[in-house]
Amino acid sequence: MIEVVQTVSKMHQVADRLRMAGQRIGLVPTMGYLHEGHLSLISRAIQLSDRVVVSIFVNPIQFGPNDDLSAYPRDLDRDLALIEEFGAHLAYVPDAEQMYPAGYATHVDVEGLTDHLCGLSRPGHFKGVTTVVAKLFAAVKPHVAVFGQKDAQQVLVIQRMVRDLNLDVDVVASPTIREPDGLAKSSRNVYLTPEEREQAPVLYRALERGKQLIEEGHRSAHHVVREMRAIITRAPHATIEYLEAVDMEGLAPRPHLSGRILLAGAVLFGKARLIDNISVDVP
Amino acid sequence: MIEVVQTVSKMHQVADRLRMAGQRIGLVPTMGYLHEGHLSLISRAIQLSDRVVVSIFVNPIQFGPNDDLSAYPRDLDRDLALIEEFGAHLAYVPDAEQMYPAGYATHVDVEGLTDHLCGLSRPGHFKGVTTVVAKLFAAVKPHVAVFGQKDAQQVLVIQRMVRDLNLDVDVVASPTIREPDGLAKSSRNVYLTPEEREQAPVLYRALERGKQLIEEGHRSAHHVVREMRAIITRAPHATIEYLEAVDMEGLAPRPHLSGRILLAGAVLFGKARLIDNISVDVP
Repeated sequence: MIEVVQTVSKMHQVADRLRMAGQRIGLVPTMGYLHEGHLSLISRAIQLSDRVVVSIFVNPIQFGPNDDLSAYPRDLDRDLALIEEFGAHLAYVPDAEQMYPAGYATHVDVEGLTDHLCGLSRPGHFKGVTTVVAKLFAAVKPHVAVFGQKDAQQVLVIQRMVRDLNLDVDVVASPTIREPDGLAKSSRNVYLTPEEREQAPVLYRALERGKQLIEEGHRSAHHVVREMRAIITRAPHATIEYLEAVDMEGLAPRPHLSGRILLAGAVLFGKARLIDNISVDVP
Repeated sequence: MIEVVQTVSKMHQVADRLRMAGQRIGLVPTMGYLHEGHLSLISRAIQLSDRVVVSIFVNPIQFGPNDDLSAYPRDLDRDLALIEEFGAHLAYVPDAEQMYPAGYATHVDVEGLTDHLCGLSRPGHFKGVTTVVAKLFAAVKPHVAVFGQKDAQQVLVIQRMVRDLNLDVDVVASPTIREPDGLAKSSRNVYLTPEEREQAPVLYRALERGKQLIEEGHRSAHHVVREMRAIITRAPHATIEYLEAVDMEGLAPRPHLSGRILLAGAVLFGKARLIDNISVDVP
């Protein structure tokens, strides 16, 4: 069985031992319930390091009061078997008491970048993310950490945190893994009813259509977003939370599209909140 | 001459090299203008580690708009000579552009503990301290860091940050170094006029009197603080910013004194804001 570390002090010891032996540590932070998206992150981490640590922790402080914390899917035994099968070397599985003991009082916050997209609809979410990622980095001491490009804003926020706090970690984004019909792989896809599942690929189709319009020469964000919205609103179970064309640097909306653009959306299908994004370089 | 490192990337390299060689790294964070208090911190760090890094950085984000940032005393050449003389091995001297580049957006904040004492009169101060200390820890990768007990609240706040963020650093507090008349050594003592300097030891005398009263059996914080205030108000140049008896754990005021008590004060003498504290165990 794969080695499982459950405490911070033990994780520090293991990390120091690996580093002293000259081993490069790769970290794949997850909330468990692993799918092929995570597999691709682990594969990337295996390419980039000598020993891959997969952390599993459903982080309560990144969920809002109306979010799906209690319903979030969990299956630790299956996850540990998959981690081993995927070729990672160690699972870091701290419990909530280990992560947020009595008297816990510290947060890491990135301003600006977190005011847009998911940050608008999920206040406090990214503060929870940056705090837990800072803790995972401190515990695991990775040389490199791999995140999914599906959470594009999360990647940018964590890269900013790493730069600002002088953390010695390479943050690598790995491409989104999709079902054959384009739906991005996500642990939350299990919430979808068969009907919702059938309609869910409209988000990716809308993003692809936006990219096509830009590549055809359209430069009005209003026009591009309107065309994207039209595709999603045709799906009766879809409710758009946001759908935007923003600049890749600051994530702020742009009326006139230029430079590197992120097309990003969050769409509700029943109990599932699905996000997706693609980037496009305006020539 | 002592080795001086000025960039984060170079500091990471040096830290990794020392750690790979099995050397224990000690860090003494300072804002420069070193005095015997810093010497004692360096001596303690030398006892506790193999290679001592002294950082020098006057951190703008821990100063408020009315604080003494521009006037804060600086003398880098003298500091570097003293660091070498004191027996430390390396100076980490980043500039503000290195520490807070364009687009800087990240802060580390400890709640609760920072609502009292200096946190009340200097809003944002501790957020600046925890942020810069998190950065220095990430850059220097110390095994142990030594801080002065004169800044008692700072020590407690940093210890909480380290615990909460799972940082693998021992935070050690080193006793306050005093002038023969009891005045705590501080870089800010240079602001004192001869008259103010003569009166400045009343802060320590008041704290000592508070301790004596508690040891004699007094348990009313109101009574103890009133007696301490009376000593300071006799000094015509002194203006009390705060003077309190708080519990050592949460730093909250206590009407009835029990357990471990911190007697702490901040007193203004002209341009100098002086702080001091002593602790006493109520039997």
